[in-house]
Amino acid sequence: MNYLALKKWLIGKPLKSNELGEQKLSKLKALAILSSDALSSVAYGPEQILIVLATVGVVAYWYSIPIAIGVLVLLMALILSYRQIIYSYPEGGGAYVVSKKNLGENPGLIAGGSLLVDYILTVSVSIAAGTDALTSAFPAIHDYKVLIACILVIVITLLNLRGVTESASVLAYPVYLFVIALLILIAVGLWNVATGQTPPVTHTAMGTAVPGVSLFLLLRAFSSGCSALTGVEAISNAVTNFKKPAAQNAVRTLSAMGIILAILFSGIIFLGYWYGISPKGNETVVSQIAAEVLGRNGLYYFVQGTTALILILAANTGFSAFPLLAVNLATDKYIPRMFTIRGDRLGYSNGIVTLGAASILLIVIFNGQTEKLIPLYAVGVFIPFTLSQTGMIAKWLKEKPKGWQGKMIINLVGALITFIVLIIFFTTKFTQVWAVLIFLPVMVLAFHRIKRHYEAVGEQLRISDDDQTTFALSGNVVIIPVAGMTKAVERSLSYANLIGDTIIAVHVAFDRKSEKVLEEKWKRVHPDIRLVTFYSQYRSLVRPLLRFIDIVREKSKDSNMAVTVLIPQFITSKSWHNMLHNQSSLLLKAHLLYRKNVIVTTLPFKFKK
Amino acid sequence: MNYLALKKWLIGKPLKSNELGEQKLSKLKALAILSSDALSSVAYGPEQILIVLATVGVVAYWYSIPIAIGVLVLLMALILSYRQIIYSYPEGGGAYVVSKKNLGENPGLIAGGSLLVDYILTVSVSIAAGTDALTSAFPAIHDYKVLIACILVIVITLLNLRGVTESASVLAYPVYLFVIALLILIAVGLWNVATGQTPPVTHTAMGTAVPGVSLFLLLRAFSSGCSALTGVEAISNAVTNFKKPAAQNAVRTLSAMGIILAILFSGIIFLGYWYGISPKGNETVVSQIAAEVLGRNGLYYFVQGTTALILILAANTGFSAFPLLAVNLATDKYIPRMFTIRGDRLGYSNGIVTLGAASILLIVIFNGQTEKLIPLYAVGVFIPFTLSQTGMIAKWLKEKPKGWQGKMIINLVGALITFIVLIIFFTTKFTQVWAVLIFLPVMVLAFHRIKRHYEAVGEQLRISDDDQTTFALSGNVVIIPVAGMTKAVERSLSYANLIGDTIIAVHVAFDRKSEKVLEEKWKRVHPDIRLVTFYSQYRSLVRPLLRFIDIVREKSKDSNMAVTVLIPQFITSKSWHNMLHNQSSLLLKAHLLYRKNVIVTTLPFKFKK
Repeated sequence: MNYLALKKWLIGKPLKSNELGEQKLSKLKALAILSSDALSSVAYGPEQILIVLATVGVVAYWYSIPIAIGVLVLLMALILSYRQIIYSYPEGGGAYVVSKKNLGENPGLIAGGSLLVDYILTVSVSIAAGTDALTSAFPAIHDYKVLIACILVIVITLLNLRGVTESASVLAYPVYLFVIALLILIAVGLWNVATGQTPPVTHTAMGTAVPGVSLFLLLRAFSSGCSALTGVEAISNAVTNFKKPAAQNAVRTLSAMGIILAILFSGIIFLGYWYGISPKGNETVVSQIAAEVLGRNGLYYFVQGTTALILILAANTGFSAFPLLAVNLATDKYIPRMFTIRGDRLGYSNGIVTLGAASILLIVIFNGQTEKLIPLYAVGVFIPFTLSQTGMIAKWLKEKPKGWQGKMIINLVGALITFIVLIIFFTTKFTQVWAVLIFLPVMVLAFHRIKRHYEAVGEQLRISDDDQTTFALSGNVVIIPVAGMTKAVERSLSYANLIGDTIIAVHVAFDRKSEKVLEEKWKRVHPDIRLVTFYSQYRSLVRPLLRFIDIVREKSKDSNMAVTVLIPQFITSKSWHNMLHNQSSLLLKAHLLYRKNVIVTTLPFKFKK
Repeated sequence: MNYLALKKWLIGKPLKSNELGEQKLSKLKALAILSSDALSSVAYGPEQILIVLATVGVVAYWYSIPIAIGVLVLLMALILSYRQIIYSYPEGGGAYVVSKKNLGENPGLIAGGSLLVDYILTVSVSIAAGTDALTSAFPAIHDYKVLIACILVIVITLLNLRGVTESASVLAYPVYLFVIALLILIAVGLWNVATGQTPPVTHTAMGTAVPGVSLFLLLRAFSSGCSALTGVEAISNAVTNFKKPAAQNAVRTLSAMGIILAILFSGIIFLGYWYGISPKGNETVVSQIAAEVLGRNGLYYFVQGTTALILILAANTGFSAFPLLAVNLATDKYIPRMFTIRGDRLGYSNGIVTLGAASILLIVIFNGQTEKLIPLYAVGVFIPFTLSQTGMIAKWLKEKPKGWQGKMIINLVGALITFIVLIIFFTTKFTQVWAVLIFLPVMVLAFHRIKRHYEAVGEQLRISDDDQTTFALSGNVVIIPVAGMTKAVERSLSYANLIGDTIIAVHVAFDRKSEKVLEEKWKRVHPDIRLVTFYSQYRSLVRPLLRFIDIVREKSKDSNMAVTVLIPQFITSKSWHNMLHNQSSLLLKAHLLYRKNVIVTTLPFKFKK
């Protein structure tokens, strides 16, 4: 099938450059669009706490309340810190930029590397959790979890290649609906609790002594709960998208988001505790709460549906953030230049495709199990959290603006808390997150090596005055692979006459008879052009051709002649015809591509039907 | 990464043509190598019968005995029929050949189409069942079933691209070991039964009346059991591989295989009945029998291990058969010509890769569930079974050799039985196999359309005497995309001087300043060559270039000049450097590939470091 036609159908017609308009966001819309990542975290954050506590037993569930309070304190510290980042970097204060500017190259690269991985995990975790929400509502499809998750990622990837931007208004509604759905759920739940309409109490009273609960376990549960905070940095990266005064509007939106997140998180934690919900393999905690509080009615499906939707939107934020960060890193020459190339629809296609493929890989490797992906995700988030706070401290110490002491203390507290959380992660979940300690240094090393290579290449391409003459060529040997006496060959010959000094036609025969026939016909029609034929017993076409081309190349080296191979490219009238042609040409071209001193020329030949 | 280097590492160094030696098989070795598909079917065939009977209840399990007898009768009929096919087509009597020669084009294409699908399903089913054998032995990995199955297919695909042939002696051992393992299992099981060392009787006595058992259900169970017969046709396709007298040796091997298959199948069915085994989602029937009879000791793991191995080998037979059938169909122009191209290792790479990808797709779609894949597989097998028997009947009627009546009756019985089984399939399992009724006609239609296209193309390429002159060209306009003043550009210019009449350099600038700088430098160094610059606000490189090339192409049309675009190809010293270069070139080339009248020339430029 014609690749371009398929691509057009999947991705849409190419956009003109000036269609890349930008729309500034109002606070309410920004709240919806930039908060999906953070708010959706309440779909899996509380569950992670319970999963850890469940290892001790149902009696330990009351600890989820004090642990949740700890998470809320951390949330407040983060919000206060990020307010200051927004004011200081109104042009967008991603952790890569803040760390690089204030702490130096390597901290910047560590932040950049963790963020790249982090955005991949944003997609994997959100989609895995979104699939959980769906399979909780429809247990029949539970077995197809991994497949559903992969299909969702592919759909989002295609939508992003088509150019769905974060600014599309339609993306705001699911967030509002999710917040409304959860607020209704929490309100009905609290009403039931207040009026005593809950099932017989299944939860242990607060403060019950639980044998087997250690500080280690509680810290582990706390660090699991911190996964509910992933995504709070999104607003600080997107200050430029706000209406003026941008920084102030961004800060207000950030605060509003923090409050909503706190309410939803506390509500879910409390209801989960009061209703004595236990984490299950095939149904999420939120689904269990909704089923208990609302019954399995329309409202229940509304909660599950909006949860799935906001999680898919959260995955979509990864698709906005990853390619932009990749452009920054590629412009600084730390990752391949291809990430700076815009696709037909003006999105950074390479970044989008890389992200989609990597997150599918993670989903498949971890078999779509959200709880196995989350520790890596949370670590990936808290490393840049810590680095950007630390960067801010360095900035205050260096610049010392008015009132810098107060500002520094806020960032210091933020840096300390996030650093402590990071330490807790590595000590309590080492078996799950050790890979980060290998992967990050390898990434930073790769960044450096790529940069070094690009600099070496720039050096080699630079023109000095004395080597101008070495490229002079004395002539052109043109080789034409010939399958038979066709119009395509005639066309190649007429072009060869135009550009070549010596012309050689080559034919690879699979049987002796057709070899003879062609040789005789050739002599009659083109007596002046040399035809070389090879007999290939095992129907291998490319091997004999390559051998011949190599010989010609060797011979022409001394006389400083160029060697050009003419390959026909058949252009079909119907796109599906394309898979019926050009396969041998493609194979030959792939082999010649990396041969130095062989110039490959593709000649189009159009079929009428 | 350098594609060729990666390929070499995965697939191995290219082989020379004369390394494609062929080795004739002795009977014992042929038995092992050509029987893996058929013998491995006992790993899932008996289970399929029980799965159907389980829908009524444990009391119905005794019906597996009479059903198994029916399957054995069918097996005998097939063996007798295939003996005759072997004697009549010693050059290899695949269903495609037999049906096409004796019944005509369309029956041949139906047989060919079902066989293509069938070989894909051979791989999917065998690998899914092999994975079942593994996860039955190691329940901890059960959740990763789909992933394991996909990895196994990828490994087999790579091995086949490297050129593992069916004749490799090492492939014979697992088959012997599997037969030995199952014979031990059956012997120990029968000994236990004979000496009364079995657990308290859990099976219903033969002949117990079972409410709810209908003829429909029994036929359904019978058709499920027929999946144990998949693969018996393999020997008839490979007669040429036998030592002389080839046909006679092949027939003897076929008979031996039939006997072994009958023994293993009966043994498993009987032990399953006697031990009262019920099919389970996470453990195969064979595993349950082995665990009951042997206990979960070393011998148990030997049974499971050899079962997994023979199933993987059975998948491998698909990789030998599919590409060869594809070559036949491609040579007859029914499928794309690319299936006739041999790869570096002298295997038909396109067929191998297509097969691997298609079977992974099926495994993922059916979530690795063997019992969902099997109905499609069995239908795919019984369609060519029926067609080739019918073809034999037509042959006897036409040729009427000595004693043809007896021979015809054998094939008539074979054709009737297989046709009846086919009818049973479509009536009792319609919801699972209806797709075949859509898919097969679509395939046959596609075969015809592809053939029609190839014939139309041949017509268009043929040279008639009067159009020889239309290809004369009056000159060559050479366009050189320029990123900066580099050595690569100098090289392109020297080649352009050799081949071009008009030379135009084009530059796309992303900022106004560098645009100016380049323009001035160019005027100084190459005052005689025209440089056209474009400013691209949104960093899109390819769009402005394409627009310019289109304009030049339009203008040069009237003067009958060729338009050639020179694109540099950087050749890096280390293979991983490759992903750092050539991405824009690749994008530009992909867009130019389908533009008629634009000739694309790739100029290699080698980096030293």
